[in-house]
Amino acid sequence: MSTAPNAPLTLAAIFAMCPALPPLSSLALRNQVFTHRSYAARPTNVFEDNPSNPTVDNESLEHLGDSVVNLIATLHIQALYPHLHVGPASKIRALVVANSHLASFAQHYLLHYHLRGNMSQQLTLQASFPIHADLFEAYVGALFQEQGLEPVKEWLSAVLTPSIRLAYQVIYHAYGGPPPSALASSIFPSEVPSNVPPVSPPLPVTDDSGCTSLLNQHFARQH
Amino acid sequence: MSTAPNAPLTLAAIFAMCPALPPLSSLALRNQVFTHRSYAARPTNVFEDNPSNPTVDNESLEHLGDSVVNLIATLHIQALYPHLHVGPASKIRALVVANSHLASFAQHYLLHYHLRGNMSQQLTLQASFPIHADLFEAYVGALFQEQGLEPVKEWLSAVLTPSIRLAYQVIYHAYGGPPPSALASSIFPSEVPSNVPPVSPPLPVTDDSGCTSLLNQHFARQH
Repeated sequence: MSTAPNAPLTLAAIFAMCPALPPLSSLALRNQVFTHRSYAARPTNVFEDNPSNPTVDNESLEHLGDSVVNLIATLHIQALYPHLHVGPASKIRALVVANSHLASFAQHYLLHYHLRGNMSQQLTLQASFPIHADLFEAYVGALFQEQGLEPVKEWLSAVLTPSIRLAYQVIYHAYGGPPPSALASSIFPSEVPSNVPPVSPPLPVTDDSGCTSLLNQHFARQH
Repeated sequence: MSTAPNAPLTLAAIFAMCPALPPLSSLALRNQVFTHRSYAARPTNVFEDNPSNPTVDNESLEHLGDSVVNLIATLHIQALYPHLHVGPASKIRALVVANSHLASFAQHYLLHYHLRGNMSQQLTLQASFPIHADLFEAYVGALFQEQGLEPVKEWLSAVLTPSIRLAYQVIYHAYGGPPPSALASSIFPSEVPSNVPPVSPPLPVTDDSGCTSLLNQHFARQH
């Protein structure tokens, strides 16, 4: 996808460069991705499920997806910048895979609209960045489980390319390079990953946002 | 490879279950894996190499290999224990991929015998567990680069299986399960990863250990 030369870039412009979300064929995997652990309201601090009564939430897919995202980010940073030393490469990766940044991709793809959890926690589920980052990682984990590394790598590398290029500017500046662009500074305001999101969580009304989202907006306006 | 039923297991017995090390075809990759950063003695805190004069040491392969080991350990723990919750799965992985544990596989495969670095640091290179863990990860990174995920996954999953089973016992005990076996406790004495190695670094005389190793043993005896 091409953008006009010298067009002002924003996070929205980065999202415009994102390829379409690859679909998940397996209905069982989709259900698992979009189930937050609050849905079954199981006790915490459990070692292992009884095999006859397994938990079907997205935690183990998120755990897998976290490793997949990490590997693909590492590979793609090395591919884009083959002469980069390991110290700055780690710092660039830390910015790109930070919860606050990954959450924004979950929101771009509207993954959070489909997340089901405990009814009393719907507002939290729709507004929490760590939950959205986990959801993005769970989707990546499910894609990896269904399709293997190569298709996920191709898609996710394209998703992360603009972010890696901006994070590179920020970290290069910390090593004495020129100041980063205004866009890079606004998306990565510090060379240390932040838990503060770069954008506010969107809660728009859309055809597919459903009743829960409308309710959440109603409650949000009360506060 | 089979072991006698009820045979007393030791770390050596775990090593006996390790499959052979898959060879690296590329001479350039082999050279890179076995070159410690002290060999070129470059300044630290560098952002990026000049493309016309790249660093050829194992740091970027180690950085890649670290992500590959992490992904394969995550996948194999989930394959062996599909009903494990994420908290204990993370703890088992932390034990298995700890530097102190990965270093022992570098030593089993005698990778450290082939490591070249600054002459004045040969003794450190031959005895340092973090350097041996990095070397193992660099080898995994190079294999991944040359052969892709599947062959590395097949080999490394077999390497890590006994360790995962022992770490499972240790972490299960921390969640109220039965006490771990004597072997599990001796290899993973704590449920928190340790930087203290489970075994002393071997410095044996073998046909392929070469002159450097003999010299190191000589120096070691002086202290």
